[in-house]
Amino acid sequence: MTTRARPVVFDLFGTLLDIRTLRDVDVLAGVGDRDAFVSLWREKQIAYAFASAIMDRYENFDGLTARAARYAAQRQGVVLDEAQIARLVEAWTAMPAFPDALAALRAVHALGGGCGVLTNGTPATAAAALAAAGMTPYVDAVLSVDAVRVYKPNPRVYAMVAEHYGRAPGDCILVTANGWDGTGAAEFGLEVAWCNRLGLPVETFGREPTWTLRGLDELVPAVRAALV
Amino acid sequence: MTTRARPVVFDLFGTLLDIRTLRDVDVLAGVGDRDAFVSLWREKQIAYAFASAIMDRYENFDGLTARAARYAAQRQGVVLDEAQIARLVEAWTAMPAFPDALAALRAVHALGGGCGVLTNGTPATAAAALAAAGMTPYVDAVLSVDAVRVYKPNPRVYAMVAEHYGRAPGDCILVTANGWDGTGAAEFGLEVAWCNRLGLPVETFGREPTWTLRGLDELVPAVRAALV
Repeated sequence: MTTRARPVVFDLFGTLLDIRTLRDVDVLAGVGDRDAFVSLWREKQIAYAFASAIMDRYENFDGLTARAARYAAQRQGVVLDEAQIARLVEAWTAMPAFPDALAALRAVHALGGGCGVLTNGTPATAAAALAAAGMTPYVDAVLSVDAVRVYKPNPRVYAMVAEHYGRAPGDCILVTANGWDGTGAAEFGLEVAWCNRLGLPVETFGREPTWTLRGLDELVPAVRAALV
Repeated sequence: MTTRARPVVFDLFGTLLDIRTLRDVDVLAGVGDRDAFVSLWREKQIAYAFASAIMDRYENFDGLTARAARYAAQRQGVVLDEAQIARLVEAWTAMPAFPDALAALRAVHALGGGCGVLTNGTPATAAAALAAAGMTPYVDAVLSVDAVRVYKPNPRVYAMVAEHYGRAPGDCILVTANGWDGTGAAEFGLEVAWCNRLGLPVETFGREPTWTLRGLDELVPAVRAALV
């Protein structure tokens, strides 16, 4: 009997790429607490994605990223003009990766079952970010919520994975650092590897992940038995 | 020509009642930073309500409140048994009001156009909380998301207000301290008075509120012309 390797999709921003590195974007040079700015910016970006999904009022992630940056600037008393806001959004197209991300992606790609990305990001921003990180050769599909016009953790987002690979949901594996992404995917029926770099408690609403990792270096060892 | 007074509905938890007072619940006596515990508990409760709405997996607010308390306890390294978690959930049935809340409610009630509550909370918890705060005599309707099994800011929640009062959405006024509640209601078509006690920037996603107040004492003066 031959077994088929299973498709694995990675969340992009915060899982493969390190959002905290946005503290080094040039237009933030004059900001007092740049880590706090980035933290609030990200928090608001996700809050707006959630609100968009719940209100059924879709606007793409680049647009929400800009809105969230404007909010963060106002909240922190930072004056940013629209060119600077655009520069902040553009920074998402060239975000440094976590040190363990490229190796994990290459290892999954080599298994041959499929190695994709499932992201809230727009197709163009995601493709640029993957290229900038040298990841394009190892990613066979960039699945963006833009195709279904609703954000994670809506089940329509996770359904794209099973559909794209032509496999049952339970055959597909999502790797994500976001707890709510993992529980949403698990509720839909994907198998989930939660990359819990910060050692947070597991979410208490929604199904738990199958694997909990401390870093992406643990991914292939942890799921190897399930992958092939 | 006679004009009819317009219905006004208040968000309950965080708008009429002060969530920060939960720091004084007895079972938290041994917790090091009780304000941080309550802040995380509330943040997670709302995050789970959002996730519930986006995943289309309804569970009532008492259940989410308990789940969020369990998460906050784990995150802060606080050991709480299930009886203590139940005590924390029960605290939402007797939460002290903001000092300006009762007077605002009485003033709106006296205008005669309708004075209701629109809450993520369960009908039982909301009714108990209103009774404990002495507010029951001034509230003619407790509208809970439990009737539509989806959380704010979903449009089905705000539709309950127009339907209950038999008025056009734009005739109805929502008073809320939560930015995302205000933008959701405004997107649906209610008119919104945002009680911005903390002086936060206005949300940059979704329609802006009609009125921004620093406290509920400003409510009737601000909207008087629109109310009758």
